[in-house]
Amino acid sequence: MKAYQQYQQKLQKVADIEHAIAVLSWDQETYLPAKGANQRSQQITTLAGILHETATDTQMGDLLGTLKDDTSLNEWERCNITKSYDDYVRQSKFTTDFVMRQSKAIADAYHAWMQAREANSFAVFAPSLDTIVQLKRETCDIVGYTEHPYDALLDEYEPKGRTVVITRLFESVRQQMVDFVREIAGRPQVDDSFMYKHYNKDRQWQLGLNLLKQMGYDFEAGRQDLSTHPFTTSFGSQDVRVTTRVAENDFNEMIWSCLHEGGHALYEQGLNPNYYGLPTGKATSLGIHESQSRLWENNVGRSLPYWKANYALTQQMFPENLASVSLDGFYKAMNKVQPSFIRTSADELTYHFHILIRFEIEKGLIEGTMATKDLAEIWNAKYKEYLGIDVPNDKMGVLQDIHWSHGSLGYFPTYSLGSFYAAQFFAKATNDIPNLESQIEQGNTSNLLTWLRTNIHQYGMLYTSEELCERVTGEPLNFDYFMAYARQKYGHIYTL
Amino acid sequence: MKAYQQYQQKLQKVADIEHAIAVLSWDQETYLPAKGANQRSQQITTLAGILHETATDTQMGDLLGTLKDDTSLNEWERCNITKSYDDYVRQSKFTTDFVMRQSKAIADAYHAWMQAREANSFAVFAPSLDTIVQLKRETCDIVGYTEHPYDALLDEYEPKGRTVVITRLFESVRQQMVDFVREIAGRPQVDDSFMYKHYNKDRQWQLGLNLLKQMGYDFEAGRQDLSTHPFTTSFGSQDVRVTTRVAENDFNEMIWSCLHEGGHALYEQGLNPNYYGLPTGKATSLGIHESQSRLWENNVGRSLPYWKANYALTQQMFPENLASVSLDGFYKAMNKVQPSFIRTSADELTYHFHILIRFEIEKGLIEGTMATKDLAEIWNAKYKEYLGIDVPNDKMGVLQDIHWSHGSLGYFPTYSLGSFYAAQFFAKATNDIPNLESQIEQGNTSNLLTWLRTNIHQYGMLYTSEELCERVTGEPLNFDYFMAYARQKYGHIYTL
Repeated sequence: MKAYQQYQQKLQKVADIEHAIAVLSWDQETYLPAKGANQRSQQITTLAGILHETATDTQMGDLLGTLKDDTSLNEWERCNITKSYDDYVRQSKFTTDFVMRQSKAIADAYHAWMQAREANSFAVFAPSLDTIVQLKRETCDIVGYTEHPYDALLDEYEPKGRTVVITRLFESVRQQMVDFVREIAGRPQVDDSFMYKHYNKDRQWQLGLNLLKQMGYDFEAGRQDLSTHPFTTSFGSQDVRVTTRVAENDFNEMIWSCLHEGGHALYEQGLNPNYYGLPTGKATSLGIHESQSRLWENNVGRSLPYWKANYALTQQMFPENLASVSLDGFYKAMNKVQPSFIRTSADELTYHFHILIRFEIEKGLIEGTMATKDLAEIWNAKYKEYLGIDVPNDKMGVLQDIHWSHGSLGYFPTYSLGSFYAAQFFAKATNDIPNLESQIEQGNTSNLLTWLRTNIHQYGMLYTSEELCERVTGEPLNFDYFMAYARQKYGHIYTL
Repeated sequence: MKAYQQYQQKLQKVADIEHAIAVLSWDQETYLPAKGANQRSQQITTLAGILHETATDTQMGDLLGTLKDDTSLNEWERCNITKSYDDYVRQSKFTTDFVMRQSKAIADAYHAWMQAREANSFAVFAPSLDTIVQLKRETCDIVGYTEHPYDALLDEYEPKGRTVVITRLFESVRQQMVDFVREIAGRPQVDDSFMYKHYNKDRQWQLGLNLLKQMGYDFEAGRQDLSTHPFTTSFGSQDVRVTTRVAENDFNEMIWSCLHEGGHALYEQGLNPNYYGLPTGKATSLGIHESQSRLWENNVGRSLPYWKANYALTQQMFPENLASVSLDGFYKAMNKVQPSFIRTSADELTYHFHILIRFEIEKGLIEGTMATKDLAEIWNAKYKEYLGIDVPNDKMGVLQDIHWSHGSLGYFPTYSLGSFYAAQFFAKATNDIPNLESQIEQGNTSNLLTWLRTNIHQYGMLYTSEELCERVTGEPLNFDYFMAYARQKYGHIYTL
């Protein structure tokens, strides 16, 4: 067998193990009975060890060593080899001992985080978090970096991402957004009280399935289940699953999680199944992944045209709450801007302050200019500064996100990057597709999906985020698109 | 670390991989979207390969080599080492090439079996089945045997099982049962037509959950889902899942699958979690496993005392069908004896003819006295001989079971062994537990469960089937218990 075929088989084997872990994790979040938790976490750890061994064994090293200088490969094959080699080099820097230590620290931190949330006290979590932070600082040294240690963490989620670039970008976000949000706060506020009435769970579930179908999510290559925290997971592009949360007294939960996770899922379902396990068969970065979820959730889902298509049915399904609410009233309610404590339920503008705060804290922890033990205070001060609100307790503050307990530092910035990429992609799609707006008004998003498939999904990792952005839109990531989108939309809603 | 601890860790790792495969398979039968089938089967194959490598690697061999002569081990530890060593020796006899060939043959055979069922033609399946049979004959040679080649296959499901013993046992089954069933056939038949009226699915599901709870199935260490073919699967004794099938026009399906799978699950939930992955933490054989499912399904579930406890509720839940049916009428209907084509829905007497036929055929195939191509004819002739019925087509005949397409030869006899063990165990339990019958009449089976936990479940593989049987009942497996049970029960129902 040729080296490239051997490499392909090896990568497919690695992908099979990754996907097995994903199935075990999906089950953990959806159907696992209470007492099964410990054994399950042990099973996942075992597979994670096998995954690391397989991905870094000498066979892999030899194959990639041979192939990285093979000039007979085509562009796609070369991309696969280059990315796999980078990944192999990164993975190989970690000893099995480090991987095991980290795995244990994460398991401990997750339990501590749960206990801290129960006790509503950051102090309970702080020591475990400190261990995680030390491991992450060690990671930066192990992986290495040229500009900033945090780059080594970013790279895992946003390949080639640069701290200095994100810092500059976020500074500009801060400058423009603070004033804009203040301006909105000065206007008469919109009424969204009807969103918090009682909405029957079964009917909400049914509506969610309808919305997923309508956007083109393939239920023969996926399914939706309930979980505490909504997520998307892929076991290969032919089995991409989403979960949602249905709150009886908050109509927002289900709608936005369906559209958001649906957007993620369309990306995964659009990856080329022939490249199963290979870089070109995988999402290029979390930033681009988030661009897909945000595009469907916000640029499409929170738009007036979208609800022109869907409001009549929604009203029919919930006449007890919506019969007397106009389309315009419904549209405004879902776009209400209001500083709040919890990131995941923030509006699409103040959302970015939540990210800025986390980014600044992560950077501070990695640089060593902030100490873990002070995080609750730092957190609360920043919420006061950026959002003008007093965090009432740790659960509503520094303990709200699971990410740090999972060891995921370097992840948060991709959420904002995603929104900004989404605005830029959607502007281009609107330009490229004649009458996109009126298609959406008809409930027809198939041309939009085709555009995304053609321009983004099919390439997998062939292009990095920045390369893809330039290729698709003709320029690098440009925050102006997001601001233009925000100014137009909220200018109308708040008559600025 | 001591060798025994290393061995323990290694076995736990092997168990983690086995259970990961079990999760992937469970999901495949319950929730997998249609298009995910190919990738899933590839993922399972990859894990199966890793499992085989891990279970037979040199570390395992070295550890077991050291430990098998370690005289400082206690009885349980010695048992673990002995069984693991036997298993290691058995597994190591197979080359990876053979394992891969077999894995591929099974995947092909499964597809061929599905196609053959669709075409209702055994000829479509015959060539693939022949490949399986050749591999199984090869297996007998690879594994080795002293008395009969089929012993090598039996051993996988019923350790130390002997073809010659089963042949003798089944001969006695045949002799006694043929006459007994004929006698029943000469009596006025019972009416069970009301079992085939329309039974609401949701209410059936609810009743099934009630029955599982009542028998002591722990829903915090398991769950029930729907699948095409009911089964029990374990991911460790803290997560043991059952599935059921609910037929709208056959009340039998749900009831018997719940009690049957519930019985299997109670065994798995009763294994010692401290011995996770070790032989003493695993079921001792499929025969004993089946004894637990049959005991709950038949000896408890199809008894008059059991329905004295549960019929009132059942009647209340389905008044439209059962209001005018007496307890005695219901009891008799569920015990109706009638020769039929399909094994899984056979009554508890004629069931064993289905097994005898399969055993004779498997033995014939392995001995080489029967040819795969003739199986449909052989099958039909035997059904005529043993059950007096004319098989109308292959789907109702030789194509009905999945087992051969899965490569599971040597499995069927354990079904009958299970029923016979069940009768013997239940007779002993009735002797040991004062007033067991009246406890069951009160809906209280907790003492029975404690008896099973104490006498059977807790030991795992510490004793073989035969050792366990002798320990618990004071004698080897004795078919007389089953016949005595049958004569008493059916003597009453059919006034013989």
